[in-house]
Amino acid sequence: MAKPSDEYVRQITSPSEDYSQWYLDVVLKAELADYGPVKGTMVIRPAGYAIWERIQAGLDRRFRETGHENAMFPLFIPESFLRKEAEHVEGFAPEVAWVTQGGSEPLAERLAVRPTSETVICAMYAKWIQSYRDLPVLINQWGNVVRWEKATRPFLRTTEFLWQEGHTAHATEAEAHEEALRMLEVYRDFLEREMAIPVVVGRKSEREKFAGAVATYTCEALMGDGRVLQAATSHELGTHFAEAFGIRYLDRDGVEKPVWQTSWGASTRLIGGLIMVHGDARGLVLPPRLAPVQVIVVPIAAGKEGEAVRTRVRQLKASLEEMYRVRVDDREEYTPGWKFNEWEMRGVPLRLELGPRDLKAGQAVLVRRDTGEKIPVSQEGLVHAVGQLLGQIQDDLLARARERLRERTRTVATLGELGEAIAAQRGMFVAGWCGRGTCEETVKAETGATLRLIPFEGEVPPRCLVCGERAQHRAVFGRAY
Amino acid sequence: MAKPSDEYVRQITSPSEDYSQWYLDVVLKAELADYGPVKGTMVIRPAGYAIWERIQAGLDRRFRETGHENAMFPLFIPESFLRKEAEHVEGFAPEVAWVTQGGSEPLAERLAVRPTSETVICAMYAKWIQSYRDLPVLINQWGNVVRWEKATRPFLRTTEFLWQEGHTAHATEAEAHEEALRMLEVYRDFLEREMAIPVVVGRKSEREKFAGAVATYTCEALMGDGRVLQAATSHELGTHFAEAFGIRYLDRDGVEKPVWQTSWGASTRLIGGLIMVHGDARGLVLPPRLAPVQVIVVPIAAGKEGEAVRTRVRQLKASLEEMYRVRVDDREEYTPGWKFNEWEMRGVPLRLELGPRDLKAGQAVLVRRDTGEKIPVSQEGLVHAVGQLLGQIQDDLLARARERLRERTRTVATLGELGEAIAAQRGMFVAGWCGRGTCEETVKAETGATLRLIPFEGEVPPRCLVCGERAQHRAVFGRAY
Repeated sequence: MAKPSDEYVRQITSPSEDYSQWYLDVVLKAELADYGPVKGTMVIRPAGYAIWERIQAGLDRRFRETGHENAMFPLFIPESFLRKEAEHVEGFAPEVAWVTQGGSEPLAERLAVRPTSETVICAMYAKWIQSYRDLPVLINQWGNVVRWEKATRPFLRTTEFLWQEGHTAHATEAEAHEEALRMLEVYRDFLEREMAIPVVVGRKSEREKFAGAVATYTCEALMGDGRVLQAATSHELGTHFAEAFGIRYLDRDGVEKPVWQTSWGASTRLIGGLIMVHGDARGLVLPPRLAPVQVIVVPIAAGKEGEAVRTRVRQLKASLEEMYRVRVDDREEYTPGWKFNEWEMRGVPLRLELGPRDLKAGQAVLVRRDTGEKIPVSQEGLVHAVGQLLGQIQDDLLARARERLRERTRTVATLGELGEAIAAQRGMFVAGWCGRGTCEETVKAETGATLRLIPFEGEVPPRCLVCGERAQHRAVFGRAY
Repeated sequence: MAKPSDEYVRQITSPSEDYSQWYLDVVLKAELADYGPVKGTMVIRPAGYAIWERIQAGLDRRFRETGHENAMFPLFIPESFLRKEAEHVEGFAPEVAWVTQGGSEPLAERLAVRPTSETVICAMYAKWIQSYRDLPVLINQWGNVVRWEKATRPFLRTTEFLWQEGHTAHATEAEAHEEALRMLEVYRDFLEREMAIPVVVGRKSEREKFAGAVATYTCEALMGDGRVLQAATSHELGTHFAEAFGIRYLDRDGVEKPVWQTSWGASTRLIGGLIMVHGDARGLVLPPRLAPVQVIVVPIAAGKEGEAVRTRVRQLKASLEEMYRVRVDDREEYTPGWKFNEWEMRGVPLRLELGPRDLKAGQAVLVRRDTGEKIPVSQEGLVHAVGQLLGQIQDDLLARARERLRERTRTVATLGELGEAIAAQRGMFVAGWCGRGTCEETVKAETGATLRLIPFEGEVPPRCLVCGERAQHRAVFGRAY
């Protein structure tokens, strides 16, 4: 039987050769996910799920700090509920998986497996909200949703995915507006600070907004191949759903009024973004704040000094794990070289090597996953050095992603210019836009790029890139995932 | 508009009058859950979900300490997968919700909304497990499952519920056996230590075991009305699923062998158990270790001393919240008396009252939820006193539940005796059993009691309660939820 240590076999395709295959290789070989038995579904394996748990923890903490509580609403939504808000059903019905039979009985009414939960949550809010004293309602749900998609890719687009969906109800439009922007800022802060993913924030066009919303706000991120990923969205729902579901409250002035609502969400697709923003030819690169394992310790412990090395490794691990998430790989059936490849592919930010010579010299070698740099450090100063390096890696990953975003954001004046620029290199393309859906659709038809967002910041260019009329908006176009 | 403070209106039915209505009143009025729009579904409201999050945290920590990792498997299972293990499909098919349409297309094969995930997980394990080096596989999943039930009740039996399901694969039968018992012990420890719910542990009969298992182990708990609740189960699956799904590994000796498996689970039904073990006529009673809010602070702050009281309350809260989960109810539209009722119904273990007289005396009043006892304590000694009382309440709740379990566990020698005893007062009934399914079924038909478990401990009585032949087992019978 061949020993797996003989050779490191989990080679991955070069991203410059075939980015799409590189992505799949990283997902599958780093064991983040696998294909489920039903077409378009995925299994999130422990290495991927541990990243999701870190994402959950970082977001959940922020949701609580902004006053939200978690709850659980049903998976199944009666078809009649979905139909109550006209735009909503039009947007989601084509993607719904339908339950038509329960046990041995055919159902009188089909049940949608929730593609999103606005309708079922609004039905409950109509029951719970009576008075101004019941407002605001600030609820979040962590769960699974299903959207029957044709073309799927693990994490980025799957028929089932995990996400969180916040659903809030407020007494006034101003409060709802403030909430929608507050949660957009929560996402931006989380993405940049924890995931080291810089984003552009702004508003979606009418064509791209959430089905049933008044306005959709978005965080858009640039991937390693220059395509753009919608990372998280926050919607102002106005009183659309309140009117459809009868969510009304008796105000202090004795008048009954509809509530103003928001909803906002982020999903396991963030893991896809993480891979594509930081990953490289050797595999996954995890930002330290998000890494389930921050330091992998590989003892180089062959021969008679083996036991002394292993003992020292246990001591170093004990002192490190008070501060950091540390794991020791002391498996004997794999060589150190194999382990180096393995943990690099899995994206662990720092590797700590300790061999007999290090032991004698009272040092250890730290190796950065992002740069490959080897840094010998004294064992006494190890805890400090690890902390300093993890912080540095976190900062450097964000800085490099920012630099790429800057380099690959270009301003174009005409549709022709956009076509040429995007053919040369994908990225984010800033242009003036008159605000008409017809011009937006022309861009998509001619270049494949969609209007990703209308950023909050930046000057409006003088003319629409399509019709040449006076621009109303500064718009960012790009090829989207 | 009537002020809600005028009167406390959320009266609940007395448990001695109508236990079943009392239970529903507690669930609905303490806002733990509500009915979902589809028959048999529930919404878990923030107060209930916060308890679930505490249960998750306590179990998840124990799962990690015993070497398990979390993952996510798909919600949809192809019908053909469910059919691969004969007993399994027979047990679950009558309860399955079926997806037959995706978007606008009818599906070629029906998809089960998972009632449990053995089959889809085994299909993945068959792909992932090749060598002894891949074993053991120790994976847990937190998620939702659906079982199409006729008679439902919030938390206890709903068509959709939240749970965790552990699924492990091992090289040997002995390892799988050890794992199944280890996880049973994890549940027992969690139930007793955190939930203050004493349980009897043992094995299920053939008739009551999990569909597809070789053996099912169980934790059974006694509720306030004398009925018995299956709180958590752990199954030895033998090689049944491994044979059906082809999960084989190449052993060190070069021989290909099937893996030995276990699965184990606990669900949101634990919240139902919590209500029925500790709840009383005033509502929910939460054990301090599990309570999302451990101390509710109610300032009695009318009149000119109001501001001084509120200031002191803020200071006390700050010093308490370093150690405990504390909340201040300083809403002005409710009276202190209303708040006392409200937080008692919601089960908060300790109330801290502070009024102008307390302020002057340098004291505060602590009130125990479980006994109603009022304990004046000096403000200087408050942090210590709170900790001491929370510990005492936790211990006392467990002791009282243990005492009830002891009192209401009776030994019966014959079916007639069982019938009389159960008619007088429900509880757990210990009897000898010959081991035959026919005698087990007779007990159910005659008394409504089912064989809850064969405890690990205790002597086997001489004769079967039904046929009078020599008993093979000590069995516990009871009316089950």
